[in-house]
Amino acid sequence: MWHAAWLPPEAFRALGSRRTVVHGDGALVDTVRSEVDRAVAASGSGGGPTYDLVLALDTAEPLPAEAAAVRAEAGELGPEGFALARREGVTVVLAGGPAGLLYGLFHVVRLGESAFGADRPIETHRPWAARRMVDHWDNVDVHPVMGQVERGYAGGSIFWADGAFRGDRDRIRAYGRLLAACGINAIAANNVNVHATEARLLTDRLGDVKAIADTLRPYGIRVHLSVTFAAPAVLGGLPTADPLDEGVRSWWAAATRRVYETIPDFGGYLVKADSEGQPGPFAYGRSHADGANLLADALAPYGGVVHWRAFVYNHRQDWRDRSTDRARAAYDHFAPLDGLFRDNAILQVKHGPMDFQPREPVSPVIAAMPATRLAVELQATQEYTGQQLHACYLAPMWSEVLAFEPVEGRFAELVAVSNVGDDPFWTGHPLAQANLYAFGRLAWDPDADPLSILDEWIDLTFPEPPEPLRQALHAIMDGSWRTYERYTSPLGVGFMVRPGSHYGPDVDGYEYTPWGTYHFADRDGVGVDRTRATGTGFTGQYPAPWSDVYESLDRCPDELLLFFHHVPYGHVLHSGSTVIQHIYDTHFAGAEQAAEMRARWAEAAGLVPADVYDRVRERLDEQVRSAQEWRDQVNAYFFRKSGVPDAEGRRIY
Amino acid sequence: MWHAAWLPPEAFRALGSRRTVVHGDGALVDTVRSEVDRAVAASGSGGGPTYDLVLALDTAEPLPAEAAAVRAEAGELGPEGFALARREGVTVVLAGGPAGLLYGLFHVVRLGESAFGADRPIETHRPWAARRMVDHWDNVDVHPVMGQVERGYAGGSIFWADGAFRGDRDRIRAYGRLLAACGINAIAANNVNVHATEARLLTDRLGDVKAIADTLRPYGIRVHLSVTFAAPAVLGGLPTADPLDEGVRSWWAAATRRVYETIPDFGGYLVKADSEGQPGPFAYGRSHADGANLLADALAPYGGVVHWRAFVYNHRQDWRDRSTDRARAAYDHFAPLDGLFRDNAILQVKHGPMDFQPREPVSPVIAAMPATRLAVELQATQEYTGQQLHACYLAPMWSEVLAFEPVEGRFAELVAVSNVGDDPFWTGHPLAQANLYAFGRLAWDPDADPLSILDEWIDLTFPEPPEPLRQALHAIMDGSWRTYERYTSPLGVGFMVRPGSHYGPDVDGYEYTPWGTYHFADRDGVGVDRTRATGTGFTGQYPAPWSDVYESLDRCPDELLLFFHHVPYGHVLHSGSTVIQHIYDTHFAGAEQAAEMRARWAEAAGLVPADVYDRVRERLDEQVRSAQEWRDQVNAYFFRKSGVPDAEGRRIY
Repeated sequence: MWHAAWLPPEAFRALGSRRTVVHGDGALVDTVRSEVDRAVAASGSGGGPTYDLVLALDTAEPLPAEAAAVRAEAGELGPEGFALARREGVTVVLAGGPAGLLYGLFHVVRLGESAFGADRPIETHRPWAARRMVDHWDNVDVHPVMGQVERGYAGGSIFWADGAFRGDRDRIRAYGRLLAACGINAIAANNVNVHATEARLLTDRLGDVKAIADTLRPYGIRVHLSVTFAAPAVLGGLPTADPLDEGVRSWWAAATRRVYETIPDFGGYLVKADSEGQPGPFAYGRSHADGANLLADALAPYGGVVHWRAFVYNHRQDWRDRSTDRARAAYDHFAPLDGLFRDNAILQVKHGPMDFQPREPVSPVIAAMPATRLAVELQATQEYTGQQLHACYLAPMWSEVLAFEPVEGRFAELVAVSNVGDDPFWTGHPLAQANLYAFGRLAWDPDADPLSILDEWIDLTFPEPPEPLRQALHAIMDGSWRTYERYTSPLGVGFMVRPGSHYGPDVDGYEYTPWGTYHFADRDGVGVDRTRATGTGFTGQYPAPWSDVYESLDRCPDELLLFFHHVPYGHVLHSGSTVIQHIYDTHFAGAEQAAEMRARWAEAAGLVPADVYDRVRERLDEQVRSAQEWRDQVNAYFFRKSGVPDAEGRRIY
Repeated sequence: MWHAAWLPPEAFRALGSRRTVVHGDGALVDTVRSEVDRAVAASGSGGGPTYDLVLALDTAEPLPAEAAAVRAEAGELGPEGFALARREGVTVVLAGGPAGLLYGLFHVVRLGESAFGADRPIETHRPWAARRMVDHWDNVDVHPVMGQVERGYAGGSIFWADGAFRGDRDRIRAYGRLLAACGINAIAANNVNVHATEARLLTDRLGDVKAIADTLRPYGIRVHLSVTFAAPAVLGGLPTADPLDEGVRSWWAAATRRVYETIPDFGGYLVKADSEGQPGPFAYGRSHADGANLLADALAPYGGVVHWRAFVYNHRQDWRDRSTDRARAAYDHFAPLDGLFRDNAILQVKHGPMDFQPREPVSPVIAAMPATRLAVELQATQEYTGQQLHACYLAPMWSEVLAFEPVEGRFAELVAVSNVGDDPFWTGHPLAQANLYAFGRLAWDPDADPLSILDEWIDLTFPEPPEPLRQALHAIMDGSWRTYERYTSPLGVGFMVRPGSHYGPDVDGYEYTPWGTYHFADRDGVGVDRTRATGTGFTGQYPAPWSDVYESLDRCPDELLLFFHHVPYGHVLHSGSTVIQHIYDTHFAGAEQAAEMRARWAEAAGLVPADVYDRVRERLDEQVRSAQEWRDQVNAYFFRKSGVPDAEGRRIY
C-alpha cells in the first residue's frame, strides 16, 4: 500500500464524528457522499438528532433553511466556489457546482474541529484560476536514459509501466483524491518529450488515456495529453506537419474529434516544440503562434485548450560565443508574438529565464505579453533542488516569483511539473509531499502564505501534531530552500551541477558545454554580464524600473548579482561581505544548517510512524553528506581560482 | 562483408604466382596448404616446372634436399619458430612446429616479391614470448552502461550479440587469420568485468567458448576466459569463495577439469579481482597471491595459466585526501607479494601506474617483482586516446614503455586490450587496424621498430602503395600519438576527459570525484606532487637512479613533469618554455597538426578504396573538431586560472 499523505483517516475525525447531510446530484456529489461515509465509518460515530453539517449544491431543491439563508447572502460562487458559515450549531457549505462541493468538503477537513466550534460568519472561496494543473513527465516506455519518469525521483510512474498502462486504478483514484484535496483539477498524463510509443496515446492507445480520465473524473480532474507536433507525419503518414497545410489541419481536427468522442471532458494538448530536439513549426518556416493556433483551432469546438511551452532555446550553443545568451531566448522568440495566439492557446512559461535553478530572476516573458494567456510553470519535482533526497520546501520560492510586481496580474494560471511516482510515499522524500500540496494551494490562491500552507499540510499529514513535532518540521522545512541555495551555486549564478544527472556539485560541469549555462569564473572574478552596457543585454527585457535595477551593479539584489553581473571576487555586496567571503560563509553555513536539520529530525522519533521517520532520516543523512560535498567542492574551486583565504580560517581543501 | 585489413588478396600476389609445396601433417599445416591454395587461386597462376617455395616442418619425412640443407644449418627453432633462406631460385621455410610453418608463410607474404629475388642467407625467427594475447572486453549481454563491448569503439562484438553467441564463425575465422598473420596466438573471449551471464561461460555456457576455440584453433590461437573470483559462490552455490577453503579449491578443480574435457587446449583464466567492484580475495582476508594461486593450481594439471590483473586501487577515494595516491596502489598491493605466485600465475600489469593515459611513466611494479612472471598490459582500444575517432598510432608509445631500462628483461609477455568489433573495418577507424597489427608484432619482438612495423602494415594493407599514399599515411600516423598528446592533457598530468565516456575535454571533470585522478590546478600552478620530499612518495617506488630522476624537479623529463610535481605556471621547462606557455603552444600546435593530418589525407583520394577513404575522412573531420575543442577548453581553463596571456597573442576564449 501507500502512505496516506495529507489525507490520513485521522484528518477526517472531526467530520466523521458529525451528523452530515449532502444535498445535490451527480457524480462529484456522490464522491462527496462517499467521503462523508468513509469518514463516519472510520470514526465510528456521526450520531445526533440534528445535522451538524449541511453540504449543499446551491441548485439543490429543496434547500434546507440553513443553506437557503447562506444562499441569500453569498455572492456568485462559480462552478468550483463555495461559501461556508456556521450558525446556531450548524455548519453550512453551499457550493456553486459539484466540484465546489468537493472543495468545500475538503475545506471542512482542513478546518477540523474549528469548523464545528463557535459561529463563523459567511466566507466565500473561489479558485483564482479555473485550471490548476500538474504535468507528469512520465514515459510509457522506459526511456534508455531518462527512465520511466523523466527527472522523476519517486520511483516509477503511477500511470505507466514498461510500455503499457499500469492499470492500478486504486492508486490513480487515491492520487486524484489527494489532488482534489489541495485544489488541483487537471493533469497532463505523459512527458512533454513525446517519444514513439507516447505519441500513439493520441490515436490507437487513446483507450489508456480514457482509463485514466475515467478514474480521475470523480475527483473533478480532467486529463490532458502531451502530443508531438510531428503527429500528422509520424502517426498520420502525411508528408508534412506544416501548421498552415490544409491536410495537417484536417488531420488534427479529425484526431481531436476522436479524442472527444472517447473522452468528452478531455482537457487539451500540451506541446514542447522546437525545444531540445522536439519537432516544431520552425521546420516549416512558421511561427510558434502558427503552431499553437493549429492545435487551438482543433480543440476549440470542444472547449479544449493547448498549453504551448515557451522553453525554446539553442541547446547546441558554442561556449566560446559570448554574445548568445540562453536567458534571452524565450523572450526573443515569444514576446514579438504577443496578441497572435488564440484565446484557448496558453503559453506556458518557466518561472525563470533558465531552467528551474534554486535562484533565478523571474522570466521577463511574463511581463511582456499582456495580450496572451500565460501559465507560469513551476517544478515540484526537485530536478535542481535536491531530487527529493534533500528536504527543500519550494513554496517560499514560488511565492516570491508570484509576488514579483511586474508579474502580478499578468498570468492566467499555474502549472507544476509533478514530483509523484509509485514510491510508497508518493514523492520519495515524505516531506516533499508538501511541495505538491503547496503547489495546489498556490494555484488556487497565488497570494496564500507559504508558511500557512505548510501549517495546513502539517496538520493534515500529522493530525494533531505534538508541539515538538510541529516545531521540528518548521525548523527543517521553513528555510530549507534558502539553506539549499546557500550550499549550492552562489548568488544566482546557477548550475554547477553534475551534467546529465543534475545531482551533486560539479562547478565546471557545464562550463564548456553547448547548453548555454556558464558562470565564467576566472582568477579575478565570476558571473555573467547580462547588462545592456557591456553584456548580453538581457536586462533590457524587463520593464522599468526592473531593467535599471538589474542593470545597476549598485542596485541589483545580492541574491541575483552573479546572474546579471561579472564581478571581481573582492566586490562588496549590500550585505557588507565580499563575493568570495560570501561564497565561503554561505557554504559553511548551509552545510551546518543541513546538519542541524538532521539533528532536529531526531526530535520527531516516536512522534511519527516508524517508516516515515526512517525514510526521512535516511534522506537527511544523504542531504548532510551532499551539502558537505557541495561546500567543499565549491569552496575549494573558488579558493583555487581566487587565492583568497577564508577570513575565518576554516578548512578549505 | 568486412574489410580485408592487412590480408587483402593482393598481398598474396607474389606467393600465389609461385609454385609451392608444403611438407608436414596436421591441422595447422592444412591451414598453410589452404592459404597457399587460396593465394594461387586468387592470382590464377602458380605454374612452372620446379618449386619456387618449399614450406616444411623440420620433422617432415622425407624432407626435400633444399629444406634438409636449411635444417642442417638452422639452430633450435622451437614450436613457433622458423628459418627462411633462398638458394638457387628456391625459397625455403623450415619450421619447428605447425604454428611456425603458419608464421613462416605469413612472413613470406610480408616479404612479397623480395622473398623470391636474390639469394637470402638463412635467417631464423622465433617469438620472444610463447604467448601473445589480446583481451576482449566483450560482454555477452549488452551492459546497460557499457554496452556490448566495454570501451569498444568498433561496433558490437564479433563473438557475442544480445546475450548469446553470435555464431558468425566466418567472421571469427577471418579474425583468427588476421591475428595469426601478426603473430598473436591467444585471446580472452570476454570482458574482465564478469557480469552474471558472462560468469556462466565457465559452466553451462561453456559450449559457446568451445565454438570460438574450435574456430580459432586452425590459426594457432588458444582461447582464455575471464572468470569471476566469486564463481564458487555465484555459480556453485558454495557459502564462500575463500581461496584457502577446501570446498572452493575442489570446486575450481572440478570446474577446470570440465573445461579441459571440453576444450583440451584451453588457455586459462583471466581475473580482475578486488578492482572497481569485482569480487576478490580481500573479502576473505586473503592475499592476491592466495587468490591467483588458487586458480593456478586448478589449471596446472592441464598446462593452463591464470592472468591475474594488478589493477587494484581505491576507486572510492575522497578527493579531499591528498595522502592517498592511486598511482601507488598497484605497487603497494603487489610488490610485497613478489615470489609468492605460482609459475603458471602471470601478474598482468598496466603499462602505467594510472590507466592508459596518453602519457604516463612506466609502472614501477614491473621493475619491482623479479621473482614473478609479469605480463605488461597495453590498450589497443583507444579509451583515452581518441576512441578510434582520432588517428593515434600507439606503437611508438608502447615501444617507449618497453625500452624503458628498468623494464627490459623484467616482463614475460605482452597483452593488449582488443580494439576490434563487428564494424566492417574491424576497428572503426581503418587506420586503427595498425594498432592491433603493431601490437602483435611487438608481442613477437618487443625490440621491433614501430615505424618499420607501420611500413609493413602499409605494404600489406595497401599493396604496392603509390608513393604519395605511403607518404600521406606516414605523415598522418608517425607522429599521431604525440599530436594527440599535444592537444589533450599537458605534461603527463592525465585525464581532463569527460567523466564516464572518457571522450573529449573536461578539465575539471574528474577533479572532485572519487577516482583518484586529479591535477590540482589552482591560480598559481598545476600538477601532482608525488615526491618523497613533500608529496605522496610515489617516486620512491622506482629503482635508482629513476627514483631520483623523477624526484628532482630539475631532472624530471618535461613530458612527465606534472605527473610528478606541482609547479607554478611560470616554471621553466628544459625546453626553455614556461609551463603555461607550453600549454598554449602545444595546444595550438596540436590542433593545427590535426588539421594538417586531414589535409594530407586528401592526397589519398583515388589511391585507396572509396569506402576506406570516406571513413577515414569522416573521422579526421571529427578529430579536427575535437582537437580544436580540446585546444580551446584547455587554453581557456588555464588562462582563466593563471591570468597569463599567450606570448603570441593568439585567441583564447
